[in-house]
Amino acid sequence: MTRILVLNGPNLQRLGTREPEVYGTLSLEDLRVRLDAEAEGVTWELRQTDDEAELVGWLHEAVDTGSHVIMNPAAFTHYSYALRDAAALVTEAGLILVEVHISNPFAREEFRHTSVISGVATGVIAGFGFDSYLLALRLVRDRSS
Amino acid sequence: MTRILVLNGPNLQRLGTREPEVYGTLSLEDLRVRLDAEAEGVTWELRQTDDEAELVGWLHEAVDTGSHVIMNPAAFTHYSYALRDAAALVTEAGLILVEVHISNPFAREEFRHTSVISGVATGVIAGFGFDSYLLALRLVRDRSS
Amino acid sequence: MTRILVLNGPNLQRLGTREPEVYGTLSLEDLRVRLDAEAEGVTWELRQTDDEAELVGWLHEAVDTGSHVIMNPAAFTHYSYALRDAAALVTEAGLILVEVHISNPFAREEFRHTSVISGVATGVIAGFGFDSYLLALRLVRDRSS
Amino acid sequence: MTRILVLNGPNLQRLGTREPEVYGTLSLEDLRVRLDAEAEGVTWELRQTDDEAELVGWLHEAVDTGSHVIMNPAAFTHYSYALRDAAALVTEAGLILVEVHISNPFAREEFRHTSVISGVATGVIAGFGFDSYLLALRLVRDRSS
Amino acid sequence: MTRILVLNGPNLQRLGTREPEVYGTLSLEDLRVRLDAEAEGVTWELRQTDDEAELVGWLHEAVDTGSHVIMNPAAFTHYSYALRDAAALVTEAGLILVEVHISNPFAREEFRHTSVISGVATGVIAGFGFDSYLLALRLVRDRSS
Amino acid sequence: MTRILVLNGPNLQRLGTREPEVYGTLSLEDLRVRLDAEAEGVTWELRQTDDEAELVGWLHEAVDTGSHVIMNPAAFTHYSYALRDAAALVTEAGLILVEVHISNPFAREEFRHTSVISGVATGVIAGFGFDSYLLALRLVRDRSS
Amino acid sequence: MTRILVLNGPNLQRLGTREPEVYGTLSLEDLRVRLDAEAEGVTWELRQTDDEAELVGWLHEAVDTGSHVIMNPAAFTHYSYALRDAAALVTEAGLILVEVHISNPFAREEFRHTSVISGVATGVIAGFGFDSYLLALRLVRDRSS
Amino acid sequence: MTRILVLNGPNLQRLGTREPEVYGTLSLEDLRVRLDAEAEGVTWELRQTDDEAELVGWLHEAVDTGSHVIMNPAAFTHYSYALRDAAALVTEAGLILVEVHISNPFAREEFRHTSVISGVATGVIAGFGFDSYLLALRLVRDRSS
Amino acid sequence: MTRILVLNGPNLQRLGTREPEVYGTLSLEDLRVRLDAEAEGVTWELRQTDDEAELVGWLHEAVDTGSHVIMNPAAFTHYSYALRDAAALVTEAGLILVEVHISNPFAREEFRHTSVISGVATGVIAGFGFDSYLLALRLVRDRSS
Amino acid sequence: MTRILVLNGPNLQRLGTREPEVYGTLSLEDLRVRLDAEAEGVTWELRQTDDEAELVGWLHEAVDTGSHVIMNPAAFTHYSYALRDAAALVTEAGLILVEVHISNPFAREEFRHTSVISGVATGVIAGFGFDSYLLALRLVRDRSS
Amino acid sequence: MTRILVLNGPNLQRLGTREPEVYGTLSLEDLRVRLDAEAEGVTWELRQTDDEAELVGWLHEAVDTGSHVIMNPAAFTHYSYALRDAAALVTEAGLILVEVHISNPFAREEFRHTSVISGVATGVIAGFGFDSYLLALRLVRDRSS
Amino acid sequence: MTRILVLNGPNLQRLGTREPEVYGTLSLEDLRVRLDAEAEGVTWELRQTDDEAELVGWLHEAVDTGSHVIMNPAAFTHYSYALRDAAALVTEAGLILVEVHISNPFAREEFRHTSVISGVATGVIAGFGFDSYLLALRLVRDRSS
Repeated sequence: MTRILVLNGPNLQRLGTREPEVYGTLSLEDLRVRLDAEAEGVTWELRQTDDEAELVGWLHEAVDTGSHVIMNPAAFTHYSYALRDAAALVTEAGLILVEVHISNPFAREEFRHTSVISGVATGVIAGFGFDSYLLALRLVRDRSS
Repeated sequence: MTRILVLNGPNLQRLGTREPEVYGTLSLEDLRVRLDAEAEGVTWELRQTDDEAELVGWLHEAVDTGSHVIMNPAAFTHYSYALRDAAALVTEAGLILVEVHISNPFAREEFRHTSVISGVATGVIAGFGFDSYLLALRLVRDRSS
Repeated sequence: MTRILVLNGPNLQRLGTREPEVYGTLSLEDLRVRLDAEAEGVTWELRQTDDEAELVGWLHEAVDTGSHVIMNPAAFTHYSYALRDAAALVTEAGLILVEVHISNPFAREEFRHTSVISGVATGVIAGFGFDSYLLALRLVRDRSS
Repeated sequence: MTRILVLNGPNLQRLGTREPEVYGTLSLEDLRVRLDAEAEGVTWELRQTDDEAELVGWLHEAVDTGSHVIMNPAAFTHYSYALRDAAALVTEAGLILVEVHISNPFAREEFRHTSVISGVATGVIAGFGFDSYLLALRLVRDRSS
Repeated sequence: MTRILVLNGPNLQRLGTREPEVYGTLSLEDLRVRLDAEAEGVTWELRQTDDEAELVGWLHEAVDTGSHVIMNPAAFTHYSYALRDAAALVTEAGLILVEVHISNPFAREEFRHTSVISGVATGVIAGFGFDSYLLALRLVRDRSS
Repeated sequence: MTRILVLNGPNLQRLGTREPEVYGTLSLEDLRVRLDAEAEGVTWELRQTDDEAELVGWLHEAVDTGSHVIMNPAAFTHYSYALRDAAALVTEAGLILVEVHISNPFAREEFRHTSVISGVATGVIAGFGFDSYLLALRLVRDRSS
Repeated sequence: MTRILVLNGPNLQRLGTREPEVYGTLSLEDLRVRLDAEAEGVTWELRQTDDEAELVGWLHEAVDTGSHVIMNPAAFTHYSYALRDAAALVTEAGLILVEVHISNPFAREEFRHTSVISGVATGVIAGFGFDSYLLALRLVRDRSS
Repeated sequence: MTRILVLNGPNLQRLGTREPEVYGTLSLEDLRVRLDAEAEGVTWELRQTDDEAELVGWLHEAVDTGSHVIMNPAAFTHYSYALRDAAALVTEAGLILVEVHISNPFAREEFRHTSVISGVATGVIAGFGFDSYLLALRLVRDRSS
Repeated sequence: MTRILVLNGPNLQRLGTREPEVYGTLSLEDLRVRLDAEAEGVTWELRQTDDEAELVGWLHEAVDTGSHVIMNPAAFTHYSYALRDAAALVTEAGLILVEVHISNPFAREEFRHTSVISGVATGVIAGFGFDSYLLALRLVRDRSS
Repeated sequence: MTRILVLNGPNLQRLGTREPEVYGTLSLEDLRVRLDAEAEGVTWELRQTDDEAELVGWLHEAVDTGSHVIMNPAAFTHYSYALRDAAALVTEAGLILVEVHISNPFAREEFRHTSVISGVATGVIAGFGFDSYLLALRLVRDRSS
Repeated sequence: MTRILVLNGPNLQRLGTREPEVYGTLSLEDLRVRLDAEAEGVTWELRQTDDEAELVGWLHEAVDTGSHVIMNPAAFTHYSYALRDAAALVTEAGLILVEVHISNPFAREEFRHTSVISGVATGVIAGFGFDSYLLALRLVRDRSS
Repeated sequence: MTRILVLNGPNLQRLGTREPEVYGTLSLEDLRVRLDAEAEGVTWELRQTDDEAELVGWLHEAVDTGSHVIMNPAAFTHYSYALRDAAALVTEAGLILVEVHISNPFAREEFRHTSVISGVATGVIAGFGFDSYLLALRLVRDRSS
């Protein structure tokens, strides 16, 4: 059965609980519910961390367990070459890694226009809120079934 | 009923008919078939042009007919500010515009890392072959139904 | 009698009909009326196109018919070296070419701060709405009478 | 009655008296005469200074007296952020500030292609000799009457 | 009662214990003593970590407990967008976040001239040794009392 | 028999008919005569367009008809990635594509020093007037015979 | 007794009297009052000028009279190397020079992120409104007493 | 007796166990064996971590225990100024710090050409596979004996 | 008789009176003495100002009186385009303008490597202390006698 | 009789004798044979040197003997301004100088995209193997006969 | 038997004989002695030249004689693409080429941070004085035995 | 007795013999005559070479013989770091090295605005024709007598 790790980077646990006018009213828990509704036939796990090393470790785990990855690297997107090297391990192992973003980074500050991850990802889905994750889930499910 | 224009930029009519090891063996016709299988409940049209002005005109048409847009701007992605201004008309009108790419531009030449369109699009889906279009179609269908 | 071509680039036919809070409530038709009120003693023609080649051709026509040019290159301003080369033909032929802009491009996005046309134009008038065209018209009329 | 300050930056008092093949044969005095012929119904004053602080002070005066401004910042155009901040006071007060240039700076040395003033001006008129001022005068007169 | 977190980034625990000619002879313990002498009427806590994720977490804690923040991000200043996003949560919550530096980064290596934090901080105090913290403490105390 | 398309970009139809001191006194018609004198044993066609899409289409035609290409992209040289992608189709199909320039772009304005086409062309011949085309013709003839 | 010059650059005399929603409702006079309340035991003087040379001269005066300096260079911050060289004279003489800013320049336009003064100042306090001056005053008072 | 810490950054524990055609067939365990064969007369320890803070801590430990350091910072090389500051503590304490790389970063992607660590290291050895570590070991052993 | 204006920019009146280890022990007065000893047969005047406008005015005076100019623009060197435009008036009038520097700006901070004046000066003499002025004096004297 | 120097820069004597899969199997000797077959009616000489000064000297010789030049500057292309100045002497003397390249430098590493020679050459022929030389030979022969 | 050329670029013959506080007290002769003590089982030769062409020729000789190379390119490191192309011949021939530096170039002036050689070398050893050469010697000896 | 080497870089032997409208009608021989007339009390030698290594060697000779240096590096000015390192040996030995230029490089092409030599020279004299050398000669003579 297809296994998927849905990984989230720094500050994303704050979604929905604070500043709803800025970050929306939905939390990662709501994302969990929405993914659950779509995840028939796949095993998946939603995780979040502020810790670069933990995120790197989860990518290693993906390689070791043959899991595909949906990752929102959040602010790590713009500088964590450690994450890039770990992400490259995933796609080099023949697994899918989808970089997702809730908002459209290209419509925000200049520094958010650059991703050090995209070049080694399978692809990128950005700008559709939680739908970015759901589209990624469908893609992985369809491709791996 | 939801209306969607699936618009393709320069050289994309060459898909599948030439250099299959480079551009894959699937043509826009194959894309049409795949979209058809997914397009229940939506009216859609697949078009391709090498002509910047024609593509701009189709975006105007989208605004006038209240159609959402899935657009692969191909090489126009990197320099056509005319297309950007037209794309902005679409999203400012409250319609969805998804920028899609077949390959992952961030894994190719440096000049392909920059999009002048993304900043005014609703979002971006890149790197998943024809699946980029299909994911976009599902997104538009779900959001507009 | 002085002949003037008033040429408009991509997306400018959308003026006034859509998003009035963004683009104002006046259309190119209104501009036509305003120019008409000022154009005593000159022959003029207002045209718009989204097509770079057509705009280039109109500049060639200006050279062939000895017409002065008032041009709002819109988004072409920022990248169309084809238009630049054609504009240079106009001023090299001793005709006046005024680059006009409705809004003040220097107060907008970074990419709008650069014009590839200005260097070969007679001069630039920017930021005064339709008055930019009217001032240009007066200038051409006064200089050529 | 509409009040206009016509302000000129460094070295512009040299116009017409020296190097006519470079700077033309017309002086600021000639400009005064030409403005006078056009200035019916407006009160205006032509000033020149090489002093950045004096020019800043004149912009403050414009705000205090509700005067519109036509300013040729000359070389200050390219570096005087002090002037920029003062110019912003004028437009923020609802007054018109037109940046004018005698020659076309975009057809000259690279450093003249950048203006630190334009972004806070109402608009820019450049490249038409003294006509740049006259067009500005007409604009202000028409808009404020 | 006003609550303040005084947060310190990587390598700052080395202050005073090693290379006194480089880093001064005062340690974070000495800073604690000095803050204590000034901190009447406020509750404060001094912390240090080399761990980006822990620092991010402390900023989340500040939001959750309504604490103001005095932060010396040390080397994180120059690249940690994760910290930036967390710092933005603090100021968006209406709390004060003062970025402090012991030395004057603008008088040191080029890479220290750029802060990715400053743009979302309330303000910056840099170059005054431990006095940078004390001034920040007074500011927060005065503003929040 | 070897087939060659000799393609010319924007403004090149103006050669010889206007501003002879700038553009020379020879027209594309003269080029046609010169090519004719050299073209023994090859079938060739000389075309010109200001239209990027038409030029892209001619490159597609070259691929479909197995024609080699001699192309003077004129101003498109500096920005048309659409043309680049189309030119790449030609050389990837094993056909020769020679980029030619009448003048030496490296001796002109800075923006003419960059070609987005050269990287996918077989080679470049620039600076020899119409001889640039003739040399290209000889090269293609010799290589394909 | 400690002597302090509180120096203010161009446009700062406009504080409070115009555009209160932009510049606040407090004037330099209000700043004078606030400084007065804090200035026990120090002699201080508040000055403002739009004139770069006058500001340079005041820094020379600081050196000659052994006065410390609190300086808000305003727009001069971003380009006045003359001011930088004069400021360096102050700190090289063993006097304190604090660069202060009312708003947080790092949260404003790109050009405000660069200070040519900071590298030779003792330190920087920015973003705290008039409190920036008061913190500076306390620092100088404490350090020099 | 000379003490050496052989420190490895993120993803290096994956050496040899995955993608041997990319990362070689040797693991850190093999490196341990090879170092052991060379390490006569020195005490050494081989460690690896994906955690920036842990790596920073190990450098502090090196200072505290008077250990020399051989460090492969892996992806941290390109952005971790926290690591740079910690590395500077080592060399400022008179200890040797050798930056090593298995592959030649200058022959790889552009972003790998920049090291934020090298400027504070004793020196750099790059491009010789595990031999990079062995050469470093010999250097430290010879210099410290 | 040859007339020479020896003009000095901001902060140069501080030479010799302060920080002799930094600025040398010689003052402008000493320079006056040295010039006097060399100035046989020429009329000269040594002036200094911190005021950009005054310096600009002196260059105008040079043009009006047919005086050659030896100018040390000090910090104005790096940004005063107003001074550049005034300096151009001098050389365009057929007079000599020598830009001099006491120290070697190319051996100092990066920003001192750029002069906006040099491009319109007759030439540059930099790095020889007061001898820079003396060499300039000899040059002007020899050339104009 | 037309005289031509065919000059080759550093490392070009290695052609054909080493690494044939990289540099082709043809040597400069083969080039000599091919040129000989084409060189009817012209006197020519093929030379190669790794020495910048020798190459500069040969260009001087070309000027002194009225010889045209076909030059492959090899790696000197990218940095030898000495060669550029010498090449300028050739074209300023009314002689033809053709810069040739065997491979297409625009399709190779970034640093090969820039030529410091092209701006003073008559023109450039690149990317056609030894045919680049032969085309150049024909051009010179035809133009000078 | 393994053959090694130890090649040294410009100014390195000055080591030890001049400015010992800057360049150390050891000469190339001392290096020769140290290499001799380590060179058992290998044939080696130490050479130095200020001549780029001679250094290029020695690299050709290395290829022809199957010699490995230890090269300190000195100042050529930063611009000699001729040397780069020659160095590439060495490693493409399957021989080892170690780029060595006595000092750590990354801790010196900005221009020394870039090497045009490193990208084609086997690897780099920098910062260890003459030990850089000795480590390189050991590496080559071990690898080639 | 003071010894001076007057060293000239590539292409300077062409002065006066070719293209007098470009390079003037005076040759290095004329320079020799002019220097002779000024050189009382000093021993000097005028040399020219196109060879970077020879020029480097002459600088070494200057150090060995205690000679001061007047050097016109010509095109080497802009890239020869080998020459820079050699020039630094001269000034570090306490000898004078004056960089001279006949024309004003700051008034010529962009690439001539940068000198890699100036930073280690005693000073620079540029723009005065052969007078640049004569002024340098006087400076050295006066300083060393």
